[in-house]
Amino acid sequence: MNVVDLIRRKRDGKALDAKSIDWLVQSYTRGKEVTDYQMSAFLMAVVWRGMRTRETVALTRSMLSSGKELRVRDQVSPVVDKHSTGGVGDKVTLAVAPLVAACGLPVAKMTGRGLGHTGGTVDKLESISGLRTELNRSTFLKLLRQHGLALSAQSSDLAPADGKIYALRDVTGTIESIPLIAASIMSKKLAVGPSHLLLDVKVGTGAFMKTVAEARRLAETMVSIGEDSGVRTLALLSSMEQPLGRAVGNALEVSEAVDILRGTVPADVTEICLHETASLLELAGLVADETAGYTRARRAIADGSGLEKLVKVVAAQGGDCTELEDTSKLPQAPVRRMLTAPSSGYISAIQAERVGLASVQLGAGRLRKGDPIDHAVGLILQAKVGDYLSAGSPLVEVHARTPDQAEAVFEQLQGAYSWSEEAPILAPLILGSVYRAELG
Amino acid sequence: MNVVDLIRRKRDGKALDAKSIDWLVQSYTRGKEVTDYQMSAFLMAVVWRGMRTRETVALTRSMLSSGKELRVRDQVSPVVDKHSTGGVGDKVTLAVAPLVAACGLPVAKMTGRGLGHTGGTVDKLESISGLRTELNRSTFLKLLRQHGLALSAQSSDLAPADGKIYALRDVTGTIESIPLIAASIMSKKLAVGPSHLLLDVKVGTGAFMKTVAEARRLAETMVSIGEDSGVRTLALLSSMEQPLGRAVGNALEVSEAVDILRGTVPADVTEICLHETASLLELAGLVADETAGYTRARRAIADGSGLEKLVKVVAAQGGDCTELEDTSKLPQAPVRRMLTAPSSGYISAIQAERVGLASVQLGAGRLRKGDPIDHAVGLILQAKVGDYLSAGSPLVEVHARTPDQAEAVFEQLQGAYSWSEEAPILAPLILGSVYRAELG
Repeated sequence: MNVVDLIRRKRDGKALDAKSIDWLVQSYTRGKEVTDYQMSAFLMAVVWRGMRTRETVALTRSMLSSGKELRVRDQVSPVVDKHSTGGVGDKVTLAVAPLVAACGLPVAKMTGRGLGHTGGTVDKLESISGLRTELNRSTFLKLLRQHGLALSAQSSDLAPADGKIYALRDVTGTIESIPLIAASIMSKKLAVGPSHLLLDVKVGTGAFMKTVAEARRLAETMVSIGEDSGVRTLALLSSMEQPLGRAVGNALEVSEAVDILRGTVPADVTEICLHETASLLELAGLVADETAGYTRARRAIADGSGLEKLVKVVAAQGGDCTELEDTSKLPQAPVRRMLTAPSSGYISAIQAERVGLASVQLGAGRLRKGDPIDHAVGLILQAKVGDYLSAGSPLVEVHARTPDQAEAVFEQLQGAYSWSEEAPILAPLILGSVYRAELG
Repeated sequence: MNVVDLIRRKRDGKALDAKSIDWLVQSYTRGKEVTDYQMSAFLMAVVWRGMRTRETVALTRSMLSSGKELRVRDQVSPVVDKHSTGGVGDKVTLAVAPLVAACGLPVAKMTGRGLGHTGGTVDKLESISGLRTELNRSTFLKLLRQHGLALSAQSSDLAPADGKIYALRDVTGTIESIPLIAASIMSKKLAVGPSHLLLDVKVGTGAFMKTVAEARRLAETMVSIGEDSGVRTLALLSSMEQPLGRAVGNALEVSEAVDILRGTVPADVTEICLHETASLLELAGLVADETAGYTRARRAIADGSGLEKLVKVVAAQGGDCTELEDTSKLPQAPVRRMLTAPSSGYISAIQAERVGLASVQLGAGRLRKGDPIDHAVGLILQAKVGDYLSAGSPLVEVHARTPDQAEAVFEQLQGAYSWSEEAPILAPLILGSVYRAELG
């Protein structure tokens, strides 16, 4: 194999065979023969030329085989996983995982940290005092068998090639590529090894995928990869035009997730949680159809079993579960400032990315991998798209470390809102789905 | 400046301003802030998206300013340079430089080494025993003032950014890009600093530019860069469909160049030498028009002044000029084997690249930078496109180190020839030219 030949082939728009892709990935991961500068040129050529599905499957398999496999489905079956491609205010996993587990379907959840304007589930979980998220293999499996739920940070010995390649993509402008995103996500999911997998592909100005067409391509690619590896995979396309729910920030989102599990959040975010829970129950065959799934999911909210599951698992992972029972005990920012509506009118749009970046600016997220984050700070949106506000009424409550920091994001937040005199037409939250049967 | 932002801008097809390009080049060359893996991703994005002329000018200027400038035109004026983009059997510079100098127009020639299937003028010159080609600045200028001609290897302190970037391009599949090629060539030419410059852009299967359209784009880009920097620049487009002349290999090409200067080579290669000499004389204003230039060039052959100039400069650079007076004293390969025509017919095509690679396989060229080369070996084509041969008549004389090595290239050479029953139509050698006035 000659690395320059492989780069040139991809550069010229030709497909690479599985053997070549595997040689490239393994040689790079082991630090032999393929250098950082060759891999980055190759990655840019992939951003340019794309990959056929069989190439992306080969890339995923190769990244998977660079490390250990957990194969949770050999221990517990069925066992599901769910993954969101990331959005602003996306606390859905925090609610769906315990809901699904409470319905009797085990959930093996390994999850990442936030980067850029989108948050990460591990960061949110770590708002809870004492909670251990770096679980070793045996602890993870023990929790899964005992509670049907384990919540862990992504283990670094799973798909280590992805870790190395992702770090390179981050500093070479090669993040934005559907095959590279698909292989990165799926290599980590396959390394955990669930029997069923639900992918929530976010679409819109606040997501990596800006259009439904792009999101569908990503979803189709990931479903192909999952099914090709024997994992029943379903992808939803859901809207990320405005932040999901009202809370943006770590402890604030944990608190909102608890409210979802208590049934006190009537809005968009509960709808998506119920939909995902129902879809997973149906996918794994625990209910006959989606309607039955919805009914089962609603019961797990109404009878408190979803919240009870989260409390138990948090306690089992060393977390202070009284913070879930009384969310005012979660980290609180010392300063709260209210941004108000500049004039009267309907909110016609909220740019999720700008809201997410305001939250990062407060300290709730990170622009560079490894940066520390502040779990207490964030935003509570007082109104969403379609709401009518009079001038001066509350728009966003900013939770900050200092008054200066709070006021520093006002302009950014103001700029995120669009206003109209007429009520806007509300777009649906669930935009579509991709099943195996729909693939060519 | 943020390097990832610049990579992303180029990746997304946007133009970069001169300041950004200069920051990128200088930071990379000094080994600060911009890493190899970031530069290689950027270079692949340039291969993909290209560059506007003003970006390519900025890149060239930045590479130029990364090192010293010789500014020969401050010492001698007018003073010309000529550059070929590289072909197989291209010994034109070896004849044109002394011819032009013999006509009274000083030639400051810094030249590169060969890579891949194309040869380099320095390698050819070094066939001559004792010849020093690594000339320092003062020696180079002294020779130029004394003889109106100096023949030097490219000095490493001129445009060092080009050296570093070229080495990276070579191992990352990013050679093939018109703006990168143009900036690489022109930064080195501008660092020498002639008043007038002739570029011979080779077109065809044996050249980097495969089509006239591509070659014209490269030529236009280079002429724009030259004129923008105050160098009167003319580009010729010339055919590299078959090897130029009959000799391919280092000493063999020196020998053929001497024959051109003696006027004993009637073929294509003499035509191109006369054309280039006439063009340079006209460009620099030494003759009224091209016809006068041709007359002057032919006289420098007929009266022996061209050869005399080469002999004097070779001697001044420590070379054994008796090897030019009697070219049988140049390095000779111990083995000669004749490949014959497989059947009777007209030669309809000779793939220059395959002939060049056969020559490299014999040891006359290098596939990797820094590889040693064998000055004695090579090929003498016994017939060219349009010639009629009977089966068994001489086709190529192979000059090799061993009989095995000679026979090892027979198949490669056979495959380079196409045959027809009818006489092929001969394409012209000069395909066009690009002057400043033709640019938009």
